[in-house]
Amino acid sequence: MTKLTLDITMSLDGFIAGHTPRAEQPLGDGGERLHEWMYGLEAFRKRHGQVGGTTNRDAEIIEESLAGTGAVIMGRGMFGGGDGPWDESWKGWWGDEPPFRQPVFVLTHHPREPLVMQGGTTFNFVTDGIGSALEQARSVAAGKNVAVGGGANVVQQYLRAGLLDELQVHVAPLLLGQGVRLFDHLGTDPTELEVIRVVESPAVTHLKYRPVR
Amino acid sequence: MTKLTLDITMSLDGFIAGHTPRAEQPLGDGGERLHEWMYGLEAFRKRHGQVGGTTNRDAEIIEESLAGTGAVIMGRGMFGGGDGPWDESWKGWWGDEPPFRQPVFVLTHHPREPLVMQGGTTFNFVTDGIGSALEQARSVAAGKNVAVGGGANVVQQYLRAGLLDELQVHVAPLLLGQGVRLFDHLGTDPTELEVIRVVESPAVTHLKYRPVR
Repeated sequence: MTKLTLDITMSLDGFIAGHTPRAEQPLGDGGERLHEWMYGLEAFRKRHGQVGGTTNRDAEIIEESLAGTGAVIMGRGMFGGGDGPWDESWKGWWGDEPPFRQPVFVLTHHPREPLVMQGGTTFNFVTDGIGSALEQARSVAAGKNVAVGGGANVVQQYLRAGLLDELQVHVAPLLLGQGVRLFDHLGTDPTELEVIRVVESPAVTHLKYRPVR
Repeated sequence: MTKLTLDITMSLDGFIAGHTPRAEQPLGDGGERLHEWMYGLEAFRKRHGQVGGTTNRDAEIIEESLAGTGAVIMGRGMFGGGDGPWDESWKGWWGDEPPFRQPVFVLTHHPREPLVMQGGTTFNFVTDGIGSALEQARSVAAGKNVAVGGGANVVQQYLRAGLLDELQVHVAPLLLGQGVRLFDHLGTDPTELEVIRVVESPAVTHLKYRPVR
């Protein structure tokens, strides 16, 4: 069985995006700073169709996650395009060649035909909930993991449902002060975690856990 | 100049105490679980007047912090005894021989004479703010560090004022779901941190930072 995983960058004070994410600034105010540790890395640049970049332990961690992932699930907020019925001209934030390069399942209340993009990404739209999205993603992941891409509310839904098998939090050395909290609305029952691995670098600390069920 | 430090245990989801801290349960619901990694350690037990216990890397981390600290600052909420004028019979949560064994400065709006306890702890009550508390604590710390003991609101006050020199967060592998958040109300200006050290153990991950000013 493939795992459902999460790889996400969080400030020490718990934010995965800055204040008020919006069309001109999808990561919110200060959100770019969170992900700064990734931008120069070869593994990240390659996914975004760029050449060159740094190879270090941080890059290995990203490479490992990307190589292990066969499909991605994300929320409509992360995909963008507003809340209502689809404007078919909206094809996500990432241009004609999105960096996913694999099947992506977008949770939405509004049906839409799949969007085949350049470079291997197909956006599929799922209207019947997180369980269905996971099932569909698994069926095309070719034995690899399914990754929850975000945003926070989708991560929280999978956590509450007890469906997440592994979570790797990349803790950025930063107090952002305000923004979108990753761990919120998780209910009143604590979840024990088992530490799988800790990797440090000057730019970020990689904490990998397995929820204990 | 001695440093102002913070050593605090936080769940991965950002809580340093459980839901509704109260007289019968000062750490709140689930709060005991947070500190579980410490209870069996020799360094912790010794401070609490007990013998025996485990010696490991976690214990060394505690020992290092305790040995480096010459005075502690805490808020009235952590000291206890309600919000109003003092009931002089209240001497804190910790019995006749509190585990601090050094001068403690309690931030309060209500003056009170110092309380000399057994085992080296003296509780001093400071009514003129966090700057004064820090100055008084430094003057008696004998060249050692001053530690902010908590609670969250006092930590936040020192962070906002830019007075904290080092913070070590002991991340417990746990999603508590609800409780008292450490990093909250920090305002809108991000604070960069420099990673000083990362130490992992199965029970907890020790992340030590220096705010960049």
